[in-house]
Amino acid sequence: MNDESPIKRAGRSGGRSARHAARAAALPDNMRPVRAGMTGGRYKPLSDAEVQKIHQAALTALETIGLADAPPSGVEILTGAGAIMGDDGRIRFPRALVEDMLAVSCKDLTLCGRNPAHDLDLSGQRVHYGTAGAAVNMVDVSGNSYRDSTLQDLHDAARITDVLDNVHFLQRPMVARDILDNLEMDINTLYACCSGTTKHVGTSISDPSHVGDCLEFLYAAAGGEAKFRARPFVSMSNCFVVPPMKFATESCEAMETAIKGGMPVLLLSAGMSGATAPSTIAGAIVQAVAECLAGVVYVNAMAPGHPAIFGTWPFDLDLRTGSMTVGSGEQSLLSAGCAQMHAFYGVPGGATGGACDSKMPDMQAGWEQMGTNVLAGVAGCNMVYEAAGMHASLLGFCLESLILGDDLIGQALRCVRGIEVDDETLALDQMREVCMGTPDIPAVGHYLGTDQTLSRMQSDRIYPNLGNRMSPKEWVEKDRPNLVENAIARKEAILATRSAARFDPELDTKLRAQFNIHLPA
Amino acid sequence: MNDESPIKRAGRSGGRSARHAARAAALPDNMRPVRAGMTGGRYKPLSDAEVQKIHQAALTALETIGLADAPPSGVEILTGAGAIMGDDGRIRFPRALVEDMLAVSCKDLTLCGRNPAHDLDLSGQRVHYGTAGAAVNMVDVSGNSYRDSTLQDLHDAARITDVLDNVHFLQRPMVARDILDNLEMDINTLYACCSGTTKHVGTSISDPSHVGDCLEFLYAAAGGEAKFRARPFVSMSNCFVVPPMKFATESCEAMETAIKGGMPVLLLSAGMSGATAPSTIAGAIVQAVAECLAGVVYVNAMAPGHPAIFGTWPFDLDLRTGSMTVGSGEQSLLSAGCAQMHAFYGVPGGATGGACDSKMPDMQAGWEQMGTNVLAGVAGCNMVYEAAGMHASLLGFCLESLILGDDLIGQALRCVRGIEVDDETLALDQMREVCMGTPDIPAVGHYLGTDQTLSRMQSDRIYPNLGNRMSPKEWVEKDRPNLVENAIARKEAILATRSAARFDPELDTKLRAQFNIHLPA
Repeated sequence: MNDESPIKRAGRSGGRSARHAARAAALPDNMRPVRAGMTGGRYKPLSDAEVQKIHQAALTALETIGLADAPPSGVEILTGAGAIMGDDGRIRFPRALVEDMLAVSCKDLTLCGRNPAHDLDLSGQRVHYGTAGAAVNMVDVSGNSYRDSTLQDLHDAARITDVLDNVHFLQRPMVARDILDNLEMDINTLYACCSGTTKHVGTSISDPSHVGDCLEFLYAAAGGEAKFRARPFVSMSNCFVVPPMKFATESCEAMETAIKGGMPVLLLSAGMSGATAPSTIAGAIVQAVAECLAGVVYVNAMAPGHPAIFGTWPFDLDLRTGSMTVGSGEQSLLSAGCAQMHAFYGVPGGATGGACDSKMPDMQAGWEQMGTNVLAGVAGCNMVYEAAGMHASLLGFCLESLILGDDLIGQALRCVRGIEVDDETLALDQMREVCMGTPDIPAVGHYLGTDQTLSRMQSDRIYPNLGNRMSPKEWVEKDRPNLVENAIARKEAILATRSAARFDPELDTKLRAQFNIHLPA
Repeated sequence: MNDESPIKRAGRSGGRSARHAARAAALPDNMRPVRAGMTGGRYKPLSDAEVQKIHQAALTALETIGLADAPPSGVEILTGAGAIMGDDGRIRFPRALVEDMLAVSCKDLTLCGRNPAHDLDLSGQRVHYGTAGAAVNMVDVSGNSYRDSTLQDLHDAARITDVLDNVHFLQRPMVARDILDNLEMDINTLYACCSGTTKHVGTSISDPSHVGDCLEFLYAAAGGEAKFRARPFVSMSNCFVVPPMKFATESCEAMETAIKGGMPVLLLSAGMSGATAPSTIAGAIVQAVAECLAGVVYVNAMAPGHPAIFGTWPFDLDLRTGSMTVGSGEQSLLSAGCAQMHAFYGVPGGATGGACDSKMPDMQAGWEQMGTNVLAGVAGCNMVYEAAGMHASLLGFCLESLILGDDLIGQALRCVRGIEVDDETLALDQMREVCMGTPDIPAVGHYLGTDQTLSRMQSDRIYPNLGNRMSPKEWVEKDRPNLVENAIARKEAILATRSAARFDPELDTKLRAQFNIHLPA
C-alpha cells in the first residue's frame, strides 16, 4: 500500500473527525485495551502428559536427591514436617509431604501496592510485567557506554516505572553501588524504590542480619507494623537455593525472618541451563520445579499459606562461551514452560522474560525482549520479571529501554488479551451491511465509519507512545523521529516533574531521622 | 552474574576445550537446531468452539452475502460447480459446495525450490518463513533515508536470501520501479529472483495478459514446460479478492491462466481490519476465511487438487490515522488466529508476520518483527510471509534488516521447535550424578562438562550470527560492535561473492536472447 492508496484516502475522508472525537474521550480503566492481570494461557509449550512427566520427575528428584545445606533452623522446620535428613547431609522430601504442603499453600495471592490501585491479583493465569535483577551497570545510551549504577539511578527507575502503564511492579533492577555499607544499601534501596513508586516493590536483602532493620523501615514507612502486615507493599526476592539442589543457607535464614515479619517471599531458583541446571530445557524446568517445591514445603511448614511466589527462574547459557544468555528462543521456552507448571500447581508463579543480551536498545534488544516477554505472557505467567530495561545478560539497566519497554509490553499484553469471539465481534451483521447495504443505507464497501469500528477503536487497540507508524513521507516531514532520542526526551520529562509517589513530608522527616537516607530530601 | 562469577570461571576451566571440539564438527542437516518445516501449533489463540464459530460464520457469509465482481469465466466455473448467481450480481456458495471443494483441495503441498534441497513441505503445521510484499522503497540505513527500489535491489535481496539459513523462500518483496514497461517488469522480476536464489520464489503478475509470457519464461528457465510442471519452483501470489467480499476481476483471470499453466497459486485475501475488513480481530478472520474459501471453490472447481495456499492475510489498521500497521499485537493475533483456521481445514496456509512499522532497523523493528513472527510460528503457520526485511508498514524493504531477520527468525524457530520431553531430557540421571556423584565419580556440582551438555550443545541451541552476547567488558574491548554496521558488512560480503544460484551460462544466454533482461550478464 503506498501513500496514495484508495484505502488511505477513504480513511482520510470517511470518518476522521468522528474518530478524532472518539479518541478524545478518555477511557475508564476497565475499558483500556490492555491492563495488568489479563489472563494468558493459550500457549501451552507442554502437553498435559509432558506436564505430568515434569511433575513426577521433580517429585522423584526431591525424594531421591533432595537438597543439601539447609541451615539448622531449616533442618528443624523441614524434618519436623516430615522431610528426611540423610547421612549425606541432604534433606529428602517424600512425595506426600510435597503434595500436602502444596495443598495448604497460598493460591490466590494479591501483591499490594502502596497505592491499592496498583494491587496485583496473581490468581489463575493473570499476567503482570515488571522489572527485576541486580544489574551493576547503567547503560548510557548517549555515550554508547556502561558505568556503575547508583542509588539515584535506582530511584529514577522507580519514578519512571511509576508512570508507565504496562510496567506493573518494580522489583529492584540494579544495585546501588555508591552505598558501600551493605545494611545502608538495603535500607536505601527500599527508600529509593518506595519513594519513587506506589506500585508493588520487590527487593532482596543481602544478609539475614539486615532483615530486622529492613522490616523496621517498612513498618515505619507503612505507619506501623500492623498496617504493613495488612498490606505488605514490599516482597522479598529470595534466592533460597543454590542450584543444583542446595539450599542457600544464609538466604534461608533471611527468608525465615521475612516470613515472621509478614513479608511475601519470592522463592527464586535461578539455575543456568548447562551450568547449574541441566542443559536440556525439560531438565532445567524439572530442577527449577523441584527446588521451588522444596521452597513451598519450607515456607508452608513454617507458616501455612504464607504468601509465596513460585519463582522457577532458569536462565539460558551460551554453551560456546559459558556466559549467561537471557534473550534466546531457549529462554522463551524455559520461562513459558515454567509458567505452565505454575498453572498446573495453581500457585502464583514468576519467571524471567524481557531481558536481553544486547548492550544497547537496538534491534537485537527489541527482538530479544519481545520474544521472551510475549511467550511468557501468552503462556500465562503471573509475574514476568526483568521484563523491561534489562541489558547485557542482566549486567546493565537502561532507563530509555525501560521507557521503550512500556510500548513493547503493551503489544505483548494485547497478545495476552487475545481474540474475543462473540456475535458482535464475528461481525456478520456489519459485513452484510457494508457489502449489501440495507433498505435505508447503500453499501459503502468499507468499515471505516461503522458504529462498531468507532466505538471499539480505543478499547480494542493499543497505540504505541514512541513506536512510530508514520509513512516514510510523513517521517521525513517530521524530521525522521529517532526512537532512542525520543525515549531520552521522555525520560527527562518524567524526571523533571515532582514525583507523585514521594512519601508524605512528615513521614519522610521521620524516616530520615530514624535511618541514614542518602537521597536528598 | 558479573564477569568474575564462579559459573563463568567454571566454564572457562571445566570444559571449554571439549566444547570447542564439539563445536568444530559440522552438524548434518537433520541435527541442526532449527530447520525449515518444524512443526508448530502449541499456541492456540482460539478455543475449539471459537474455531467452529468462525468457520460457521464464514460459511454463513458465503451463503448469504457471497462475492461480487467475478469475471465471466469465473461465473461460469463457479455456477457450474453449484454456486448461485444472484440478481444483485453476487455469487453465493451453498455450505455443501464449500465442504465438497475443501474435501478435494490440495492438502500436502510441497513447494519446490529450483534446488530440491530447498523444497518446502507444507503439510500439517510445518512452519516456514520468507519474504513477501510489494515495497516501493529501499531503506538506506547509512543515509537514514528512503529511495525508490530497483531491479538490482530485488536481485540483491534474492542473493542474500539464498544464503540465509532461516529465510526459507523468496516471495518478491519489492517492486522494480526502474523498469517502466509492466510486462518487462514482470519478466525481469522473475529473472532477478530466480537467478539470485534456488529457493522457492513467489511473485505476482500485474496483468492477466502477461501470464502467458511469464509462463514462457519459466518454462524456458526450467528447461521445458514439462519440467516446470513437474517441479514448479515459482508460485503466483494472487490478490484474487478485493475485500470486503468482491472478486478482483483481472486477478481472477490471471489466476485461471496460472492454474492452466501449472503454477501453484497463493490465494491472497489482504483485508485491512477496520477499513476493508471488520475492525474486530474475529470479524477480520471470518471475512478472510470466507474469501479464501471462495478461492478454494474457484480453484478446485477448475482443477481439483491444484496446489493452492490459503492466504488469509488480514492486516491491522491504526484507527487513529487510517494507516496500515503491521507490527502490532493485534496483527500477531490476526495472523496466529488465521494459522489456527488453516490447521482446522487441513490446508496449506500462509499469513503475514515479521513486517514492521518502524522506518529503520531499530528496537521497534526488533519487537514488531519478533512479536508477529514468533506467534505465527508457534501457532503453526505454514508460510509466514513478509517475515524479514520489511519496514514502514510494507512501504520499504531493507537488506540489512533482512540479514538481521535471519538471526531473529532463528530464535523464533527455536520456539517453534519447542521443548522435548523424554527420559534423557528430563535429566534425572544427570541431576543425580552431578549432585551426589557415583561410586566412581565425585559430585561436581555443575553440568558444564556432562556428556549430555557437550553432545547437545550444537543440536539443541541456536547461536546468533550478528546478535551480540558479549559482557560489557568484552564489548568495550572489541570496540563496541554495532549491530547495523555489522549487517552492512555482511551484506557487502555476500554481494561481493559470485552467486551460486545464477543460471547456467548457456541457459542464461538463451533467456537473454528470448527476453529483454535488464540485469547485466
